[in-house]
Amino acid sequence: MAKEITTRKENYSQWYNDLVTKAELAENSAVRGCMVIKPYGYAIWEFMHDALDKMFKATGHVNAYFPLFIPKSFFSREASHVEGFAKECAVVTHYRLKKNPDGPGVVVDPEAKLEEELIVRPTSETIIWDTYRNWIKSYRDLPILVNQWANVVRWEMRTRLFLRTAEFLWQEGHTAHATKEEAMAEARKMLDVYADFAENYLALPVIRGIKSANERFAGAVETFCIEAMMQDGKALQAGTSHFLGQNFAKAFDVKFLNKENKLEHVWATSWGVSTRLMGALIMAHSDDNGLVLPPKIAPIEVVIVPIYKTDDQKQQVLDYCQTMKQRLENKGLRVKFDDRDTQKPGFKFAEWEMKGVPVRLAAGPRDVENATVELARRDTMEKNVVSEENMENHIFDLLDDIQNNLFKKALEFRQSNTFRVDTWDEFKTVIENGGFAYAHWDGTTETELKIKEETKATLRCIPLDDDLEDGKCIYSGNPSKRRVLFAKAY
Amino acid sequence: MAKEITTRKENYSQWYNDLVTKAELAENSAVRGCMVIKPYGYAIWEFMHDALDKMFKATGHVNAYFPLFIPKSFFSREASHVEGFAKECAVVTHYRLKKNPDGPGVVVDPEAKLEEELIVRPTSETIIWDTYRNWIKSYRDLPILVNQWANVVRWEMRTRLFLRTAEFLWQEGHTAHATKEEAMAEARKMLDVYADFAENYLALPVIRGIKSANERFAGAVETFCIEAMMQDGKALQAGTSHFLGQNFAKAFDVKFLNKENKLEHVWATSWGVSTRLMGALIMAHSDDNGLVLPPKIAPIEVVIVPIYKTDDQKQQVLDYCQTMKQRLENKGLRVKFDDRDTQKPGFKFAEWEMKGVPVRLAAGPRDVENATVELARRDTMEKNVVSEENMENHIFDLLDDIQNNLFKKALEFRQSNTFRVDTWDEFKTVIENGGFAYAHWDGTTETELKIKEETKATLRCIPLDDDLEDGKCIYSGNPSKRRVLFAKAY
Repeated sequence: MAKEITTRKENYSQWYNDLVTKAELAENSAVRGCMVIKPYGYAIWEFMHDALDKMFKATGHVNAYFPLFIPKSFFSREASHVEGFAKECAVVTHYRLKKNPDGPGVVVDPEAKLEEELIVRPTSETIIWDTYRNWIKSYRDLPILVNQWANVVRWEMRTRLFLRTAEFLWQEGHTAHATKEEAMAEARKMLDVYADFAENYLALPVIRGIKSANERFAGAVETFCIEAMMQDGKALQAGTSHFLGQNFAKAFDVKFLNKENKLEHVWATSWGVSTRLMGALIMAHSDDNGLVLPPKIAPIEVVIVPIYKTDDQKQQVLDYCQTMKQRLENKGLRVKFDDRDTQKPGFKFAEWEMKGVPVRLAAGPRDVENATVELARRDTMEKNVVSEENMENHIFDLLDDIQNNLFKKALEFRQSNTFRVDTWDEFKTVIENGGFAYAHWDGTTETELKIKEETKATLRCIPLDDDLEDGKCIYSGNPSKRRVLFAKAY
Repeated sequence: MAKEITTRKENYSQWYNDLVTKAELAENSAVRGCMVIKPYGYAIWEFMHDALDKMFKATGHVNAYFPLFIPKSFFSREASHVEGFAKECAVVTHYRLKKNPDGPGVVVDPEAKLEEELIVRPTSETIIWDTYRNWIKSYRDLPILVNQWANVVRWEMRTRLFLRTAEFLWQEGHTAHATKEEAMAEARKMLDVYADFAENYLALPVIRGIKSANERFAGAVETFCIEAMMQDGKALQAGTSHFLGQNFAKAFDVKFLNKENKLEHVWATSWGVSTRLMGALIMAHSDDNGLVLPPKIAPIEVVIVPIYKTDDQKQQVLDYCQTMKQRLENKGLRVKFDDRDTQKPGFKFAEWEMKGVPVRLAAGPRDVENATVELARRDTMEKNVVSEENMENHIFDLLDDIQNNLFKKALEFRQSNTFRVDTWDEFKTVIENGGFAYAHWDGTTETELKIKEETKATLRCIPLDDDLEDGKCIYSGNPSKRRVLFAKAY
């Protein structure tokens, strides 16, 4: 192997860090908590971006851009929003540096103090609803279906590459509607878009649900989420969609004349996914040899590695591989021909395994002679020698199969680590071993917090599956109408 | 007209502001100097982004992402960079807010003061070269051809939508090379990419040149630029590409082992274009009726407006228009069918003229009867009735013609407002009337600054056209080897 990583069994957390670094996805920067997303990692993010952007546009949304900075006072406008977001954030207090009068370098110019401090956006509801006030006069101006691709900053104390960083990239949709029903339908629609994306692009099976009051977005009336299981049995929230009611419209005085010519506050939603999805993607599918990528978001679908010993063989094999590359590119595939002569095939195999390229095509002198190629699939590591004639079809089949297999494997893993539990002991065992526990809950925040305190499990969501059933709360024994999902989470 | 704007003759500057607002491209936000880019404006930026991104990738570049924040001390590392950039910038000094103990709202928590202040990036050379130090060990790691799409902040005192804003969007390429020649070739290549993009997408003829020492990027050895003429005869710098020599490699200690196994500092370039291009685009082509967009970057290429009076006519005309829409979309065109029944055709005509849609297709009952449509082109406002049978081809021809005509018109305008001047009086007249003056210059910053002081003209560039000619400096009378370009500028 070119680069070794810790195994999952040894240390799951270290395995993740090793993988992110050695697959060249991201690294820590000189700025505490801020990451550098390296070209290979960013290329995966670009595929996520492009797929999501198409889905947003297909559902009638348009993109726009709002300021990075938010006046401090805006956060105090919406009572619960200020609790959730006006805490750990980057505060701009000055707008000028000057030469250090007492030595080398530069210092902050005390004369250039802002009258009101600016906050680097942790999320943009406030600045956007301040803007919408001028955009919305009548029901004819509604709905507004806007999305923004942006960077945001939350001053996290403990950070991990992709999963929790001070600065991260995301998209945030912010929509405005004339009726409650329409806003609620929008919030649900975008949850479905996220679930569709997670399952069909990232091969990540998700559970759709509603957050408890305690886990709700600060300022939302209802928060919907998708939850996925990682390979250590922990949950990862992969996207959220919020029905905001009229909270932000009231806080920022956004009213419209309805069809009856009466002034009403506007109804709102917001929804977002972030570079955190990179963490989910990595932890869901990868193995001890490195990254495993679903073909649909793999920057390289097929890597070609030539195998030769003598100079005579070299030219012949390179020409042969070049033809394969051309043929695959003609079919629209993303292909990398690794023709470096500074590295041996074994090194290249390990490197592209580390980087999770779904299909490897290798060819040597015997393949040239027999008109064959060797195909290896990254997910199962299976190898097959096939005729070059049908190579393209074999590869298309393989890519489909890998995409489906990754989803199936992740789903089976989740199913075998999900339990319906009815006693507190069972509950603790499931949570301790790493897994999803469907349990009855009495609906109070008090119980939710006690369960968290005692087991570190959080209430991930109240699933949207309408699976009603009378029972007793796992913790308090009080009556319950349905099971909810508990797990330890990232 | 639906919405009136000031004419260019009346007040060019007001015309620009009116247009940006009334075509719904952008508006000022609650944060001083920061703009909101509205959906229609952002859609144009997306076309610019996508076209440029393809060109960057076709020339071997990849995207990555570096932190928004830069430690204050980084700016002092490169001597001239600190002069140019560590001045008007947003400074983050704290990382937490808390409840105001003395009243409502939140205040900055004095306990949460950063040890070292962070600067919101005005440009990213420093943080990127700090990162490259770990990426580059040997000549085998070179070149690095990385680009970043990002927001940057420069605390401008006087701002104007798109042209000069505190926060703006841009791309910044940052490349690392083993040799001076290769880095210089890269800087020149990217200048050509920018010129190609400006001329073939934005229909904006540009002059390629080198900046004088005084106008050079802070930290660069040589700055290349493209300069365009706006309709008031002023210049607008539409893109820059910098050969940075080894300045940043030395400042951040980035060395590589060359093929001879010796340690050498790495050679660098950086290059960028920004949302300022939106300003250039608007000012180059638009007229007193609103925006005029080159088809290649128009979010809507064809708008369809139905014309009817009675209900019988209505259905017939709407069906007819719907068919046209479908046919045009089948050809891959970006089409908007304006079937609102709340507005009259005249209002719609004016609105889409304001928004610069290149081609308008109108159809009424007579068109249905005669199997015709009326096509109007936005640039010349000419109208033509054509048979619906060949409609698609007519429109393709029109779009090509508009794209070419806009470039030709802008080029002719520039040519008729460009003068070779040999006396100080001529020079002053050309500058005063608004225009480009090619004049001899003695090569000193002193003269350059005096010319600026007396006429407000800046030295835009030393053109790359190799048009050498002996002469005397327009200002000092000292000998000169070639003419350079002077103009007032945005």
